[in-house]
Amino acid sequence: MQNIDEIKQKLPQTISLEGKIVRIIDQRQLPQALVMEDLKNVEDAARAIKDMHTRGAQAIGATGIAGMILAAEEFSRDYAQAEPKLKEAAELLLATRPTAVNLSWGVKKMLKVAQENPDNFAKAMWKSGQEILTSEIENNLAIGEHGAKLIKDGMALQTHCNGGSLSSIWYGTQSAPYFTAWRQGKKISLIIDETRPRLQGARLTAWEAKQLGIPFQVVTDSSCGALLGGEKVDAVIVGADRIAANGDVANKIGTYPLALMAHEHGIPFYVAAVEATIDPDMPNGQDIPIEERSQAEFWEYVDPEDVDSSMPALNIAFDVTPAKYVTKIITEKGIKDPSKVLE
Amino acid sequence: MQNIDEIKQKLPQTISLEGKIVRIIDQRQLPQALVMEDLKNVEDAARAIKDMHTRGAQAIGATGIAGMILAAEEFSRDYAQAEPKLKEAAELLLATRPTAVNLSWGVKKMLKVAQENPDNFAKAMWKSGQEILTSEIENNLAIGEHGAKLIKDGMALQTHCNGGSLSSIWYGTQSAPYFTAWRQGKKISLIIDETRPRLQGARLTAWEAKQLGIPFQVVTDSSCGALLGGEKVDAVIVGADRIAANGDVANKIGTYPLALMAHEHGIPFYVAAVEATIDPDMPNGQDIPIEERSQAEFWEYVDPEDVDSSMPALNIAFDVTPAKYVTKIITEKGIKDPSKVLE
Repeated sequence: MQNIDEIKQKLPQTISLEGKIVRIIDQRQLPQALVMEDLKNVEDAARAIKDMHTRGAQAIGATGIAGMILAAEEFSRDYAQAEPKLKEAAELLLATRPTAVNLSWGVKKMLKVAQENPDNFAKAMWKSGQEILTSEIENNLAIGEHGAKLIKDGMALQTHCNGGSLSSIWYGTQSAPYFTAWRQGKKISLIIDETRPRLQGARLTAWEAKQLGIPFQVVTDSSCGALLGGEKVDAVIVGADRIAANGDVANKIGTYPLALMAHEHGIPFYVAAVEATIDPDMPNGQDIPIEERSQAEFWEYVDPEDVDSSMPALNIAFDVTPAKYVTKIITEKGIKDPSKVLE
Repeated sequence: MQNIDEIKQKLPQTISLEGKIVRIIDQRQLPQALVMEDLKNVEDAARAIKDMHTRGAQAIGATGIAGMILAAEEFSRDYAQAEPKLKEAAELLLATRPTAVNLSWGVKKMLKVAQENPDNFAKAMWKSGQEILTSEIENNLAIGEHGAKLIKDGMALQTHCNGGSLSSIWYGTQSAPYFTAWRQGKKISLIIDETRPRLQGARLTAWEAKQLGIPFQVVTDSSCGALLGGEKVDAVIVGADRIAANGDVANKIGTYPLALMAHEHGIPFYVAAVEATIDPDMPNGQDIPIEERSQAEFWEYVDPEDVDSSMPALNIAFDVTPAKYVTKIITEKGIKDPSKVLE
């Protein structure tokens, strides 16, 4: 079993709050270089979210928490004086990504912690923030423990997008089962969908595998027929943006064709996600709103010499995989049948 | 019904042999600009194939024919003197793409025509070459006539790769049914898979649609689940690289997942191809060899600032769609059930 600290040397936390320093990986520099950035104040934190130094639901939420903590450090020790400044800081942070649920939750949580601890609000916010980050990492490690049981020595696993360490505080959800299997000494390999249009697979998931020394190959998203039909893949593992009460899974565009193809060829299709991703108020996947993103984003990652970026593009960001094509859902609580995801 | 000549103004022949001039579209300049190039000698023709000024099976075959014709023009009127020079020209052309079946066929055909007409070999080669090109265009127009019957007014059609005019002498195979439907005044629209890694959909199929004024949107190859499951597509139409005797279809990577998803949602999936694509000696698709291409090609079309092109990539060029997921195959002879493709 490889040591957790050794792994952290190669693949640092996406965001950490340690010894009063807020440190993030500047993901804009990946995969060419691993560049760490120290956030010094709430403006730095807001910029890190807005300009996508950091990305992924958990990491964005944590950066919001970090921004609030940095604001508390900056202002008066007197809560009555600090309170309006903290509210301004919250507004600044929330404006960076108005639809990010984790961001909103984290920022509001910090306001509440301050309010409940007027005598030592800054210290209380640090403590609470650190606890939240630790707890999220523990959840991911638990997903790893459960999920690794599904991964046998020698397996080739296909992944989509980045539900890896870089999308989380650390260790990831999609990645947790294969990270743990790898740490246990199982000889696995990854087939990584590049994941157009933003290439999170090619840029981020592949970089994580490279850092840990897990053998991998990047493929086009359209390769699933040749790969799954050609017996090149033993299991598929993906993350989730949202899981409906019936087990339908909303995730990055391309997840559904991968699941359908896996089903067609009898290959297990696993979804790894924290319990918080499960939405008990959403009865099924048809009701999950599907975001369409910009034409600019569609063309951004291809070589500008090769395309005409004035051409109309339909940039659908997510799709919904019916529960019947999901073999198991892995959360920090265990391995679940999609039909029993609420249990 | 729109006039053929009007269409040719907007979308010229990929290669033409007219009035002793060989003229091609330099496809390297697309989609930014339509640049025509005159080929003056066999070296020009060889360079046009090797450096991919022209591409697509039919067009490469025709460029080989053109190269032989240009060689014949250049050399002695005496066949005994010209013969060794023609053989040299043939070798030069065949070396540009050793595996291109149409190229080999075209070049050898021209050698045979010369041999059979020693007294006026250059003239006979022009005549034969022009007949071949005319016949290929007629085949594509016939595919258009048959295929347009399957396309109703208002339909949204999803396409993959470029089996369009630019892959042929003119008019294409994949494109022929929707070109003819459009000329008949049917209001159709196209959803065009970008087709990684070489982006033939985004660069070529989209450009063709733009030239003719057919409304279109480019999508990522991974969008088929959201599109076909979301009732945004009425039919899918693709080309074929090779069709086995049982109706299995080898085509650009990504065709199979598109077909499987179309089947899942009861959407017709059509393959348009010339009869020559059908291989009676290949009993089924499992036996069709699947080419893996270079890692360099995989990374070539993405923005070099975004990726690390030293990362390993598995670049599978084709996949095989089982006949059971193909609704109809459209050839110049008519509309066929995949199980009766040899009839």
